[in-house]
Amino acid sequence: MTTDERVSRIKASIGCIPNFPKEGIIFRDIFPVCQNPDVFTDLIDVLVEHLTKTHPKIDVIIGLEARGFIFGPIIAQRLKCSFVPIRKKGKLPGDCIQVSYQLEYGVDIFEAQKTAIKEGQGVVIIDDLIATGGTMAAACDLVEKMSGKLLECLVIIELSDLKGRDKLKHPLYSMLTFGGH
Amino acid sequence: MTTDERVSRIKASIGCIPNFPKEGIIFRDIFPVCQNPDVFTDLIDVLVEHLTKTHPKIDVIIGLEARGFIFGPIIAQRLKCSFVPIRKKGKLPGDCIQVSYQLEYGVDIFEAQKTAIKEGQGVVIIDDLIATGGTMAAACDLVEKMSGKLLECLVIIELSDLKGRDKLKHPLYSMLTFGGH
Repeated sequence: MTTDERVSRIKASIGCIPNFPKEGIIFRDIFPVCQNPDVFTDLIDVLVEHLTKTHPKIDVIIGLEARGFIFGPIIAQRLKCSFVPIRKKGKLPGDCIQVSYQLEYGVDIFEAQKTAIKEGQGVVIIDDLIATGGTMAAACDLVEKMSGKLLECLVIIELSDLKGRDKLKHPLYSMLTFGGH
Repeated sequence: MTTDERVSRIKASIGCIPNFPKEGIIFRDIFPVCQNPDVFTDLIDVLVEHLTKTHPKIDVIIGLEARGFIFGPIIAQRLKCSFVPIRKKGKLPGDCIQVSYQLEYGVDIFEAQKTAIKEGQGVVIIDDLIATGGTMAAACDLVEKMSGKLLECLVIIELSDLKGRDKLKHPLYSMLTFGGH
């Protein structure tokens, strides 16, 4: 199958659940993809092919808690590079570096383990979805604070109407775009 | 390398962080393993070899939020079976089945998507660690409630002094055992 054919099959597997997590939102559900081994393998293949073609040397794949953990480690293993998690405050042991970011109501804090990225390492951040872009922008800040060289942000689903892309200073690759929000 | 040699190298890569998350606890940290691609690949290889040898037919790999998400999907992809998440209440869209379980103070609720397991499918539950066994036992209850055939619980780290194993009615495989808690 061509890349376009594989991407179409992946898109057709995304669940659409109206009014979750609240009235008026259509939730795009990545989990049906994970239940079909062929489509799930296609998804990882397409992401790995994109990364291999785009970046000659990636040292670290970062996954954002919690759905970024589903895709980041598989890709890191395929590219033979390090997998590093970014988590909500208080979940990671040892010395951590923090960044705070704005939520709809209030502030949240992301953390990564201090020694997890070495200065100048090439880093790609992975999450399942970008909406308003607040968490992805915070993750970018954290990587820069750790002196990593941020090559790209990568998501499977982009909710294009929410313009999260505009919040980022670094390139964003999204495999699937959904409007209508 | 033999399986024993690989397991020794994995064990040597586990981080030991005293007094986290509270005074007197030694936290066993799996993330250093994920930062070394060779050791991380060994870890997945050993788990896949164990599962292939032990169970002729696995349909579903379940990962417990959040660290089970790091290992479950890679293993599901290697075994060409479905990956299904169990998450804390309110995180999964669509119709869910719930189970409640006791925490040190209060009660928590686990959920899985209703159609994610079909009756009689062979299921393996994966998490990074078993301590007192409360969350793993709750996950087992949820799989049974969904009419899955629970073949095994699988963890990388077992804190043997906490006797979590005794809470389970199903077989438990742990790759590494740590005492001294």
